[in-house]
Amino acid sequence: MAGLFSKKLNKDIPVPYYYQLKEILLEYIVEKPDNNNQIPTEIELSEHFGISRPTVRQAINELVFEGYLTRQKGKGTFITKTKINQSFLQVLESFNHEMVRKGLTPTTKVIGLKVMEADSSIAEMLKIAVNDQVIQLRRLRFANDEPIVYVITYLPYEKCQAIMDKDFQRESLYDLLSKECGFELLKAVRKLEAVLAGEYESQILEIEKGTPIQFIKSVTYLADETPIEYSLAKYRGDRSQFTFELGIR
Amino acid sequence: MAGLFSKKLNKDIPVPYYYQLKEILLEYIVEKPDNNNQIPTEIELSEHFGISRPTVRQAINELVFEGYLTRQKGKGTFITKTKINQSFLQVLESFNHEMVRKGLTPTTKVIGLKVMEADSSIAEMLKIAVNDQVIQLRRLRFANDEPIVYVITYLPYEKCQAIMDKDFQRESLYDLLSKECGFELLKAVRKLEAVLAGEYESQILEIEKGTPIQFIKSVTYLADETPIEYSLAKYRGDRSQFTFELGIR
Repeated sequence: MAGLFSKKLNKDIPVPYYYQLKEILLEYIVEKPDNNNQIPTEIELSEHFGISRPTVRQAINELVFEGYLTRQKGKGTFITKTKINQSFLQVLESFNHEMVRKGLTPTTKVIGLKVMEADSSIAEMLKIAVNDQVIQLRRLRFANDEPIVYVITYLPYEKCQAIMDKDFQRESLYDLLSKECGFELLKAVRKLEAVLAGEYESQILEIEKGTPIQFIKSVTYLADETPIEYSLAKYRGDRSQFTFELGIR
Repeated sequence: MAGLFSKKLNKDIPVPYYYQLKEILLEYIVEKPDNNNQIPTEIELSEHFGISRPTVRQAINELVFEGYLTRQKGKGTFITKTKINQSFLQVLESFNHEMVRKGLTPTTKVIGLKVMEADSSIAEMLKIAVNDQVIQLRRLRFANDEPIVYVITYLPYEKCQAIMDKDFQRESLYDLLSKECGFELLKAVRKLEAVLAGEYESQILEIEKGTPIQFIKSVTYLADETPIEYSLAKYRGDRSQFTFELGIR
């Protein structure tokens, strides 16, 4: 470990040791981003810097609380992987466009595409009648070959049937809705919750069960306030961060 | 269980049984909101409706996936509690104002208030020098006596010292920044992540360890783009849902 940290604690200044250690660790974290590197154990840090374990623990606890470090049960403490900064909550833009804009390579795998009858929740969201036909499209979307979000999309079949034979692996749904159906999307209303990955989500998103997930339910509207798309998206919490700016009320 | 469900499955129509059961359960969920009620077991439902357990499981799985039901390990399946619809991501408004607007009674417990030196992450966010003095305010905020969010706020001490002797249990920070310091807030930039509750969060928010949490880091700016507040907020995932509307790019 000797080579990891060039700095030492300064025991002659009135700055608490935990605070000095936190600064050293922060520097270390910033210089080594995205490696998912394990940091040395409490014992190693306590021996290396000549301070007590509770002092080391205080520095690590704060960095865990602030999101810089992640404890993995039975494995150790790791630098939190840099997350993809998603604009999904900020702008109405297709996943593909957004990833390309961020320098990532998007791919899409279509898990399923079928026509089914709307249940009461789908009907309510799309303002159609229960049992009206809807298109159900299930897609898994990747950034640089890593699965990032699993989306189930419902569209009213009557209005959107022109998209049924299109290739969703190559074309964006929003582009198709515009090109094939002539729809111009106006706005989306999104509801966001933090949930845990269950059996199915963990398999499809390649994460462990019980991992945090951002669950976003959206309804997208046309200019005349007709809902045209209802979607349920589950984003990997370990790879996604959502940023947005808001003004005063 | 006989009294719970008045409807039966219709075995003479070509609608799949799982789908019919899902509709019946959805109706039941909508009529009994916010009780955190346990639903009958798979075996009970399978016997009551005269259908196979895999069929029951498919209906329940979909409702779990869509967020209507929550499985609790070793306990059973429950109707998901109605979450508080937070506008924190939509409008720059104090927690107190927002809760009152929603008909909930907000209370605030001040966990700590002190002056400390900025570490490098705080300094970066507030655009001040490392070791400059900052106010650290730690608050736990309740809605109808239930803890909802734990917030650590950092403010530049030099500019905000007038608020040091104020009563944060009674007054909103944004009101105080305006009244005592003459600051008009212009906008906030928020980053949102889904994380798991650790030891500390679980204790303070009265939830189990490993429960999902919405972790929001914000920087609030004055009209001249000076950052005036940096905060780390941890919202209970089981009680919070964030809604917002967005327009086309």
